Amino acid sequence: MARKGLQTTDKDIINLAKIVGEKWILYKRPDLLAYDCDGFTIHKHLPRAVVFPDNTEEVAEIVKYCDAHGLPFLARGAGTGLSGGAIPLNGEVIISLVKMKRLLSVDLENRRAVVEPGFVNLKLTNSIAHKGYYYAPDPSSQYACTIGGNVAENAGGAHCLKYGVTTNHILGLEVVMPNGEILEISTNGVPDAPGYDLLGLLTGSEGTLGIVTKITVRILKNPEAKQTVLAYFDKVSDGSQAVSDIISAGIVPAALEMMDKTAIEGVEAAAFPVGHPRDIEALLLIEVDGISAGIDEQINEILEVCRKQNVREVKVAQSEEERGRWWANRKTGFGAMGAISPDYLVQDGVIPRSKLPEVLARINKISEEYGLRISNIFHAGDGNLHPLVLFDARVPGETEKALKAGSACLQVCADVGGTITGEHGVGIEKKEEMRYVFSDQEIIAQTDIREVFNPKNLLNSGKLFPSPGRCAEVKKELKEAVKTV
Amino acid sequence: MARKGLQTTDKDIINLAKIVGEKWILYKRPDLLAYDCDGFTIHKHLPRAVVFPDNTEEVAEIVKYCDAHGLPFLARGAGTGLSGGAIPLNGEVIISLVKMKRLLSVDLENRRAVVEPGFVNLKLTNSIAHKGYYYAPDPSSQYACTIGGNVAENAGGAHCLKYGVTTNHILGLEVVMPNGEILEISTNGVPDAPGYDLLGLLTGSEGTLGIVTKITVRILKNPEAKQTVLAYFDKVSDGSQAVSDIISAGIVPAALEMMDKTAIEGVEAAAFPVGHPRDIEALLLIEVDGISAGIDEQINEILEVCRKQNVREVKVAQSEEERGRWWANRKTGFGAMGAISPDYLVQDGVIPRSKLPEVLARINKISEEYGLRISNIFHAGDGNLHPLVLFDARVPGETEKALKAGSACLQVCADVGGTITGEHGVGIEKKEEMRYVFSDQEIIAQTDIREVFNPKNLLNSGKLFPSPGRCAEVKKELKEAVKTV
Repeated sequence: MARKGLQTTDKDIINLAKIVGEKWILYKRPDLLAYDCDGFTIHKHLPRAVVFPDNTEEVAEIVKYCDAHGLPFLARGAGTGLSGGAIPLNGEVIISLVKMKRLLSVDLENRRAVVEPGFVNLKLTNSIAHKGYYYAPDPSSQYACTIGGNVAENAGGAHCLKYGVTTNHILGLEVVMPNGEILEISTNGVPDAPGYDLLGLLTGSEGTLGIVTKITVRILKNPEAKQTVLAYFDKVSDGSQAVSDIISAGIVPAALEMMDKTAIEGVEAAAFPVGHPRDIEALLLIEVDGISAGIDEQINEILEVCRKQNVREVKVAQSEEERGRWWANRKTGFGAMGAISPDYLVQDGVIPRSKLPEVLARINKISEEYGLRISNIFHAGDGNLHPLVLFDARVPGETEKALKAGSACLQVCADVGGTITGEHGVGIEKKEEMRYVFSDQEIIAQTDIREVFNPKNLLNSGKLFPSPGRCAEVKKELKEAVKTV
Repeated sequence: MARKGLQTTDKDIINLAKIVGEKWILYKRPDLLAYDCDGFTIHKHLPRAVVFPDNTEEVAEIVKYCDAHGLPFLARGAGTGLSGGAIPLNGEVIISLVKMKRLLSVDLENRRAVVEPGFVNLKLTNSIAHKGYYYAPDPSSQYACTIGGNVAENAGGAHCLKYGVTTNHILGLEVVMPNGEILEISTNGVPDAPGYDLLGLLTGSEGTLGIVTKITVRILKNPEAKQTVLAYFDKVSDGSQAVSDIISAGIVPAALEMMDKTAIEGVEAAAFPVGHPRDIEALLLIEVDGISAGIDEQINEILEVCRKQNVREVKVAQSEEERGRWWANRKTGFGAMGAISPDYLVQDGVIPRSKLPEVLARINKISEEYGLRISNIFHAGDGNLHPLVLFDARVPGETEKALKAGSACLQVCADVGGTITGEHGVGIEKKEEMRYVFSDQEIIAQTDIREVFNPKNLLNSGKLFPSPGRCAEVKKELKEAVKTV
């Protein structure tokens, strides 16, 4: 019998409601529709229910219930993920962490803060900015995405060239394991903490090993000064060479971003146009930060490198306002594609910097072959490419074509010694492409680790690794080989 | 029957010799004595044999042989480890990697080099210095220690404050797994590579998960300029405050080292005295590097901070030669204790920087309590303390007292929210102290991972984790709890 307020006789819903309170569970179809996908919208599945725990103990109770009753489950932050990590492929119970959004403590002296997983990335910087501190990882979705989600995906951002990705900024985690046990994992801020690096293992495990319920992050002192350069190149090869030359000069810019012609067309048609010329092949957005005294010399060196590479125009931001406009323009990059195409697919390959011109030429060929425009936005400094495949889902067969073109771009990245994701994760989007970079044995080594933490595979199953097949066979062969020894 | 040249009828020795060649195996007692310990000399055990493979395939064959015949085995580099990671506790077959010392490739454009595990740390920098590049991790033993050993221990060094420890510089590994399988693990230089972070897991696993046979490392461009400051303080609390103030000023020195009075007495009595005053409580050695233009301002700020904290004398190195002498003096630090004490025990705790004065006072108390002098050398910038317990092993009971005093220092570090090792590893030395920082459940999570890679526990067994006891019971309880659900 349904309890007061709940209009269901479903025993699991009633029991889960007892844990979080009736107000904090969704189970009716219209309510569930908003949770059928995340930022990767090509696959959609309805969850069994969505629950909103308020604290670690409630998360642990929910997980214990799911584990005991064989219910698949997964955690969800803001749902901004781009690889489908929060899509309930198997009708999971979604554990939404948006209510757990407290900033628990800030310790400026030791440069640490403790947050709950639902705390929004940008809010952390906003909370400590007046004291002169900030949190470094800055994915473009930082105004919305949660730090819990950042941990799951090991999120990057434009400024990760100098400051590293999420894993470089995590000092400790509280994790609810798939059996409901609560584990504390901490380095205590130590670069080489004792024992195996579980913190590194959990970070970026895409929600398949446990559910993070508390996060200790490193916070940084604001740099004394920043300067930002915008450079326009007639030839993409000149822009690429400038990227290499800047790095070779020993400069480590805070950010070193590149956009190609189609990307420029997009951002100029979107919310924050800044008047980029439309007939150039590439622009670079370069930011240097640090102690004031060193900045000017670095900027001069960057300007000189650009001039040597036949830059058409190069300028330094004259005010914080101008700098802000340039970044707003860049950060609309993905969404801006909506202004020039009904649909688009974001890819996320990584290549050695030196292969940039070759890879861009091959992506051009893929574009021609599939008859789909592909624009390129990239964190050029660390070779992290975002080919954006433009398509129209209303045209029959075009979605499939776009997926194939995207996959072909990743194959190119893998071919030149790069890999298939730099910051968006594998999720369901790229799990088959894992075979481009991992052998069967290497995948088995990873699924064996998953088995340690997540033996029943009820937590976020069907993600990150290719469907069993050849791997399962190899595993059987290996196990038999071991036995016969 | 013994094969020609081998004076033994031991089947295992004969078979192992077939793999590496008769010249490349030691099995006679006098030859084995040199391998009964590493840099941690308190425990000694004879190995069964020492083999010297020449390449990955030979390593794999040796491992397969040991695995098939139930022979315990472990890998050894230069034997400079300080926590006993290469000590053959169970009469292991030692796989010495000193013959595998080739520099396989250098790719300056993409800033990578590939080395074999026996390649000596400092040789890498020496090989690329003339082109303006270097390898960042610089343990004090870098003239002797191997990069393979650095990977096993996730070695640090004086310059890790700014540049990070070994794990931050490893881009790929080839590993022979405990069953003889060869695994390639690579991020392809990507900060957030797809899949679980196996590279992070293997790095610092202290030779318990696999044997590294090839290493791709990141190389860095030489900084344009360096400057080094030496500051003498009458009070250790003033020196500690200066450390905090430098970091608070937003400066990230390349190195920020501290020595106390006893340590100064030691280094001045050793090979490279520089004339430090003997009546000060602490000295700081501070190095800043980067683009020339920024350096002077940072140095001025550092000088000002020191003056505000009542520095007695502060000076900037006037030449590369002077800078070199200061560093040689500092780097003799541990060994120098030999000049003022028959024996010494190096500890390796880590604390939050803000706890420095409190921890030093408590270490002083431990020193009084045990009647043993304790000197302190530390990477002050990241709170990595090296208390050196001075003792005389010839005095009955003093070794045990020294071990207890060292353990008490680590307990203090754990108490204030720090941990028990910063860069030397756990090995056999600190395995019981793992309980200061990990719960039973947390240790089990780690030994479960070891089981995935090293199911028979033939590889380097008895290291890194406390002896089973309470943990084994808890594991049984947990497994039963899971079953009853």
